[in-house]
Amino acid sequence: MGKVDMSKYAIRTDLAIEALEVTKVGDDFKTEEETVRGVKITRVDIIGDVIDLINKKKGRYITIEFDDITDTNEKEDVKKVFSDELKGLLSHLKIAKDSSCLLIGLGNDKSTPDALGPAVVDNVIVTKHLFDLGTVSDGFRSVSAISPGVMGQTGIETSEIIFGIVKRIKPDFVLVIDALASSSIARINKTIQMTDTGIHPGSGVGNARKEISRELLGIPVIAIGVPTVVDAVTIVSDTINFMHKKMAYNKNNMNNPINRLVNPNTCDYTKDNSDLSLEDKSNLMGIVGTLSEDERRQLIYEVLSPVGYNLMVTPKEVDFVIEKLSDIISGGINNALHKEVTDM
Amino acid sequence: MGKVDMSKYAIRTDLAIEALEVTKVGDDFKTEEETVRGVKITRVDIIGDVIDLINKKKGRYITIEFDDITDTNEKEDVKKVFSDELKGLLSHLKIAKDSSCLLIGLGNDKSTPDALGPAVVDNVIVTKHLFDLGTVSDGFRSVSAISPGVMGQTGIETSEIIFGIVKRIKPDFVLVIDALASSSIARINKTIQMTDTGIHPGSGVGNARKEISRELLGIPVIAIGVPTVVDAVTIVSDTINFMHKKMAYNKNNMNNPINRLVNPNTCDYTKDNSDLSLEDKSNLMGIVGTLSEDERRQLIYEVLSPVGYNLMVTPKEVDFVIEKLSDIISGGINNALHKEVTDM
Amino acid sequence: MGKVDMSKYAIRTDLAIEALEVTKVGDDFKTEEETVRGVKITRVDIIGDVIDLINKKKGRYITIEFDDITDTNEKEDVKKVFSDELKGLLSHLKIAKDSSCLLIGLGNDKSTPDALGPAVVDNVIVTKHLFDLGTVSDGFRSVSAISPGVMGQTGIETSEIIFGIVKRIKPDFVLVIDALASSSIARINKTIQMTDTGIHPGSGVGNARKEISRELLGIPVIAIGVPTVVDAVTIVSDTINFMHKKMAYNKNNMNNPINRLVNPNTCDYTKDNSDLSLEDKSNLMGIVGTLSEDERRQLIYEVLSPVGYNLMVTPKEVDFVIEKLSDIISGGINNALHKEVTDM
Amino acid sequence: MGKVDMSKYAIRTDLAIEALEVTKVGDDFKTEEETVRGVKITRVDIIGDVIDLINKKKGRYITIEFDDITDTNEKEDVKKVFSDELKGLLSHLKIAKDSSCLLIGLGNDKSTPDALGPAVVDNVIVTKHLFDLGTVSDGFRSVSAISPGVMGQTGIETSEIIFGIVKRIKPDFVLVIDALASSSIARINKTIQMTDTGIHPGSGVGNARKEISRELLGIPVIAIGVPTVVDAVTIVSDTINFMHKKMAYNKNNMNNPINRLVNPNTCDYTKDNSDLSLEDKSNLMGIVGTLSEDERRQLIYEVLSPVGYNLMVTPKEVDFVIEKLSDIISGGINNALHKEVTDM
Repeated sequence: MGKVDMSKYAIRTDLAIEALEVTKVGDDFKTEEETVRGVKITRVDIIGDVIDLINKKKGRYITIEFDDITDTNEKEDVKKVFSDELKGLLSHLKIAKDSSCLLIGLGNDKSTPDALGPAVVDNVIVTKHLFDLGTVSDGFRSVSAISPGVMGQTGIETSEIIFGIVKRIKPDFVLVIDALASSSIARINKTIQMTDTGIHPGSGVGNARKEISRELLGIPVIAIGVPTVVDAVTIVSDTINFMHKKMAYNKNNMNNPINRLVNPNTCDYTKDNSDLSLEDKSNLMGIVGTLSEDERRQLIYEVLSPVGYNLMVTPKEVDFVIEKLSDIISGGINNALHKEVTDM
Repeated sequence: MGKVDMSKYAIRTDLAIEALEVTKVGDDFKTEEETVRGVKITRVDIIGDVIDLINKKKGRYITIEFDDITDTNEKEDVKKVFSDELKGLLSHLKIAKDSSCLLIGLGNDKSTPDALGPAVVDNVIVTKHLFDLGTVSDGFRSVSAISPGVMGQTGIETSEIIFGIVKRIKPDFVLVIDALASSSIARINKTIQMTDTGIHPGSGVGNARKEISRELLGIPVIAIGVPTVVDAVTIVSDTINFMHKKMAYNKNNMNNPINRLVNPNTCDYTKDNSDLSLEDKSNLMGIVGTLSEDERRQLIYEVLSPVGYNLMVTPKEVDFVIEKLSDIISGGINNALHKEVTDM
Repeated sequence: MGKVDMSKYAIRTDLAIEALEVTKVGDDFKTEEETVRGVKITRVDIIGDVIDLINKKKGRYITIEFDDITDTNEKEDVKKVFSDELKGLLSHLKIAKDSSCLLIGLGNDKSTPDALGPAVVDNVIVTKHLFDLGTVSDGFRSVSAISPGVMGQTGIETSEIIFGIVKRIKPDFVLVIDALASSSIARINKTIQMTDTGIHPGSGVGNARKEISRELLGIPVIAIGVPTVVDAVTIVSDTINFMHKKMAYNKNNMNNPINRLVNPNTCDYTKDNSDLSLEDKSNLMGIVGTLSEDERRQLIYEVLSPVGYNLMVTPKEVDFVIEKLSDIISGGINNALHKEVTDM
Repeated sequence: MGKVDMSKYAIRTDLAIEALEVTKVGDDFKTEEETVRGVKITRVDIIGDVIDLINKKKGRYITIEFDDITDTNEKEDVKKVFSDELKGLLSHLKIAKDSSCLLIGLGNDKSTPDALGPAVVDNVIVTKHLFDLGTVSDGFRSVSAISPGVMGQTGIETSEIIFGIVKRIKPDFVLVIDALASSSIARINKTIQMTDTGIHPGSGVGNARKEISRELLGIPVIAIGVPTVVDAVTIVSDTINFMHKKMAYNKNNMNNPINRLVNPNTCDYTKDNSDLSLEDKSNLMGIVGTLSEDERRQLIYEVLSPVGYNLMVTPKEVDFVIEKLSDIISGGINNALHKEVTDM
């Protein structure tokens, strides 16, 4: 049969945490989990050379997971946690308090689900021009910011624009913000990932673009991303998983007569780790039920893609979500970069 | 067991054409199909009292289906067809060439997938104030227009605002434009529906609102809608259907050795009407495969909804699509309402 | 010669405070001035029938004057003062704490200098729909809000739309927000006026429209306005006044040798009330210098208007100013209308 | 008295045509005037070294003047004339049909009067990425485009960003679009200037920035500018000029009894070149009337500036004007750069 190119239907994820979920954690990884103010933080250090395995480079990946940022209190908690983790990453990378920073907002400001980067840039405090004039008070560092647009708007590889600017203005490090694709409907608009490994080829909402990383630019590059879109393959595949989980949950819990009093529809079966037997899966979902995750995604991809239905979609509240996410990220960045900014 | 309320997981559709697809057409319906400039037109007259059956009132439903309005030529063709069908509907309703019209753009201009109505209102030619001043040339009719916003913005039932304005300015008929929910991933952003039955309760992208119809307002109400969002239940259910269709297609065509030379992945199996046997369905998808459409939707709904994953989503290109759709509809309305407007 | 229609070149002002400046205050007026948090408040009660004299109806006019709302502290001070004055006016009008309010944002959201009303409506807390559902906690009143657009967008007299909605939803009182024309370059974007006399014909940035007032609607109407535009006649006439004032200031102060040490260019001559003699005015500005304010405006109008140069203009920072003004007014309204809203 | 720095109150103009009006044309200039489709074109070649005199470098300056681009026909005429003049300038500079172009939209997309450059970039056809892929049909050239933002947004000198990008992507020439300041109320939003001398320091709506020119970048730089703002000094000074002109016009024409039948208010005195005698000026406007243009501007500046009233303003229709101007300029550029684009 020959070798199959799995890249098309393989899990399309920019999140290390998602990649790790389908992989055995071994010596190649160091993982740390913590919950602060109700916000779940996962810090992963990839130490070994596993890029062929999970398409993730060596480096630190921090993931922040939350539920509902339309709640004002939770939004402020997420902002605080995000800011603290960013400070931690700066310190991990030994970036000094007066190192100058160039912020880059990737994405298309005319396309709402892809406008997170430009929206963050609109709300950060820039100071480089004031440093050039010598009029900045203590407690600030030199920060510049740009939204270079996407290749469909500029005709230029975005990495080329950034390379040109970095060579000219010589910042000490770069912070890139972008909207990402998710491989799970559970994470859309509910996760922020930070990494020191840059932004990788083929990622993101739009088209592939060249890597923006320390290797290219010669200075530390921190990438901050939020998954804002998901494809139909993922929605269907996730749902089939959820069907299995729910049936397992019901089976395990409904034998106990007490539990039958509880409405199973209101129980969060996703927190339960039990799984169905292969026989149960086969009964419930036939051949499709017995496929591995990758095989199932491949099958769904082959059904939807040729007829143009593997839509890349975003929740309909996208305008409001992007506004809140950009407030969290810009406020957190201002606080992390400038000692003087305490009111986020 | 008692009677089950099917309304939650029943096909959530505003399109008569979709409702009809799952129903036997009989004496209660008159259906006419035509393809003009590559655009498929379906005109349905519901004559019988079938509202309990398919949740559609008596009246005319015209559906225009197209493929790709990013193609400039196809966009102009769709605009022409839409305008002609609107003229036909005005004439069917015996609305005179000088009858005054109030255009209403429903939806939230701050939420891109719900902004179609306001975007159309921004681009239509209004003339009522000029008629009031007596300064209009021949070939125009009196047209006024308003975007009343949604209840979350105004705190007021939208139908109340419209009722108040209609009572005061007394137009001869009303034209309502809104973004809708679709029950098929195939129709999102690819269908325009026109009907003389008004906008019905529970429809649309947002929350339920009271009916805007001839019964309420006492004058003809034409509703123009485009499905711009779809829920996860529909995406999963449609995909399972497509799996069956594709397997049926492959089975029927791949026995012929000649066909094996054709790459089955590039064939449009959705145009094929053959279906799998129940046994094949059971093999492929187990119990889930053998459920009826309604049962399957109910099952998926019960899996996704309690854990908050029955997302209502829109394709990520939503900004560009809304712009093109509003251009088609406003241009078509200008042409249909004003004899003098020939350049759409 | 016959009677001259002065209306064209007469001071085009919506601000009572400006009208009063050119008029002798007598028994017809009661005026009160106060400075709170550095913000100047003027409360004028027009008791007599002076509408022919200064084109202002009987009622209360409150004017709030400030310098620089790009300063965050001053912005918060202005918001607090505005909110307190609005509470005072509600109490003066004996409007109860649970009276329901309809907010109306006049103006065109697509035209930045005219977008203040719609911007305020976008940011107020609406609750009427929650009251209708019975789900509101204590400390809130029923508030609804609408931006009806301008006649050029809707084809409908704005007062007709409002009349229709008010008749239908029956609020206890109405709050109207609009951008105004100023008769002084000193007040642009630096004044908020509140009045219980409604919005008057011929006012505002746009075209004349029918009055929105207690007389029309049968319920109290509070109008809140900010002058955001000014015409060239006013800019030129004000500058000639400033020339006279500055010459008078210099003459009075520069005789004293001590004062010559002070740079006259940095002194604020506008706060000085001394005026030039007629002879000095004639020397400085010839015939033009000796004209009365009205005559001078008439002359400038006759020079600029026939050749199309009596531009109506707005400061180039208009986008940022409208954003800050709408934040002040919406925050102040939320605080004044809902006891529970303490964080503006 | 010492030397006075005139730069503050000197005519603040970016338009060569305005600078020339106050200067004697001699051997240093070559001027050509033409009217095409009702649009006035002035082509000035500055040959001599007059930069100290009028602050304009050697090179070609083309000015297009028009009346009313809200008129659809006139707008199309202006677009055609602009496109033809741009083609002429490209040919004058010997820029080949396949030379690659980088378009730069200067200005702040968040500030309407300064948003012309970014708005043009949003509407031009970019092709560089297609050339890089080798998928462009004949009749197009390689075009890339970027809106770098202003220093207040980025913290970076705009010229630095552009220099960095130009060094990296190496276009054959650069086209810069910007909103300018005007020294005449007659030209606001009614003039397009094109020049091969680049954008000069201290120009524009915003703050000074370093030159963007052939000298800096090493490749031809064509700058396209439209005056969209004017300061109060100019409005007042222009009006005093108009007063003189109108009085001269009336004096000259009203002695003829026939002319008295014509309403002098409707005559366009600005087209008349007669001027008042110094005595008449002194009678009409006193000392102010007898000042030279520069002295009068200095006086007005000294009156308005210390008290903060030398506002920089824009006509209140700014949103609609920027939209139409950007349509003219982007359409004209597309047509001039790509042989294949005939429909502007």
